[in-house]
Amino acid sequence: MGEPAVVLVSGGLDSATALAVAAAEGCDVFALSFRYGQRHAIELDAASRVVAAQARRSGSEIRHEILEIDLARLGGSSLTGDGEVPRHATVNEVLDGVAEAIPSTYVPARNTVFLSHALAWAEVLGATRLVIGVNAVDYSGYPDCRPEYLEAFESMANLATKAAVQDGRTLRVSAPLVTLSKAAIIRLGLSLGVDYGITVSCYDPDETGAACGRCDSCLLRAAGFAAAGVPDPTRYGTGAPSGPTA
Amino acid sequence: MGEPAVVLVSGGLDSATALAVAAAEGCDVFALSFRYGQRHAIELDAASRVVAAQARRSGSEIRHEILEIDLARLGGSSLTGDGEVPRHATVNEVLDGVAEAIPSTYVPARNTVFLSHALAWAEVLGATRLVIGVNAVDYSGYPDCRPEYLEAFESMANLATKAAVQDGRTLRVSAPLVTLSKAAIIRLGLSLGVDYGITVSCYDPDETGAACGRCDSCLLRAAGFAAAGVPDPTRYGTGAPSGPTA
Repeated sequence: MGEPAVVLVSGGLDSATALAVAAAEGCDVFALSFRYGQRHAIELDAASRVVAAQARRSGSEIRHEILEIDLARLGGSSLTGDGEVPRHATVNEVLDGVAEAIPSTYVPARNTVFLSHALAWAEVLGATRLVIGVNAVDYSGYPDCRPEYLEAFESMANLATKAAVQDGRTLRVSAPLVTLSKAAIIRLGLSLGVDYGITVSCYDPDETGAACGRCDSCLLRAAGFAAAGVPDPTRYGTGAPSGPTA
Repeated sequence: MGEPAVVLVSGGLDSATALAVAAAEGCDVFALSFRYGQRHAIELDAASRVVAAQARRSGSEIRHEILEIDLARLGGSSLTGDGEVPRHATVNEVLDGVAEAIPSTYVPARNTVFLSHALAWAEVLGATRLVIGVNAVDYSGYPDCRPEYLEAFESMANLATKAAVQDGRTLRVSAPLVTLSKAAIIRLGLSLGVDYGITVSCYDPDETGAACGRCDSCLLRAAGFAAAGVPDPTRYGTGAPSGPTA
């Protein structure tokens, strides 16, 4: 029995890789997803596929909880219905935009809300690690994907719970991808047997789950496959991204 | 227009007072409550009464959101259905018990989950203050009611959001009651016009909202009224607490 760890699984490329890393490190993994009013709720089907595939590779069951939370009611993000998801022609446009300002796809305090629920579940399970697949390199500039944020969350968490304060069960927040490029993440995941064909990264997929190929997430993902020199298994609705890639 | 502040309102004595303090300080208050699987969900009716009463005193509307979250599904607390809520004969028994161990009514990471949602809403509203009615004196020893926890949450919050990181809108977590005795909280609230008769503190009230008089929360509350030397307006089901009070 390895270290019990709660892993946030969105159904995207990064969290599928983070799950595989935690399992490869010998953690006893518990998967947690959220239905939070995201327009791409179809990613939750991908999350279930990702967890099932990992369980097959690990040869053991993985408990997977999908919690309902109502971030859409609070508003403030194009990802939960306030306005359109931005589209770009190339990944360089995405990165230029991110350098200017945090995009409208940012969901206020999303990772804090997710990690807080993970903290609650970890305490009940006796887990001592939270795993989150955030990345601060090929990313959209969200503040809650940066190492300094994660360190602050970990400090807070270790003052928040009976597990830590009374029982001395210190919690660690682990972000195995945070300093990797998207290409390095893809190579790492492939080395661990991750099937990226079953993941959904698109912020605004069609009703079949096919990717738009033009949102920030699609373009960062496609550029990652190009840079890694491996075929992109993503199923696109209206065509794969073209043009300059990272 | 005062400083916009999101105030956590449970429907109990402390949060009713914290709301009154924030309003008295001139904040433009937004009230936030949670249906989280608590056995005393009737406290949410009290929360609505508390907000309505504050709005009448302030002479202005107060927006009140009640969010649904599923902490009961994660388990780990007698307050969400895992086991019985402890009963005691006197408040001294409560305080002796708290000195020994954090009681079973502790809900894993509850205040972190609540504050995280408050942080999300604050960002959307442009609010710069979160107000929480926690108290670390006459309390059940919950780790997430202590000043060091709240400071860590504030530090984390100011690294988490676009509001803080990009727009420089620093957030403050304000806990106006944290170092007060229960009696001092009651005197403060009465001086601000709070009607404690409409609040519900009991962890396990009957279906009419009448208090049990024997849970930690009832006994701490009753002892507070006794120490403040004011009549206890609580509606008890089977009789008010008696015996030694603080």
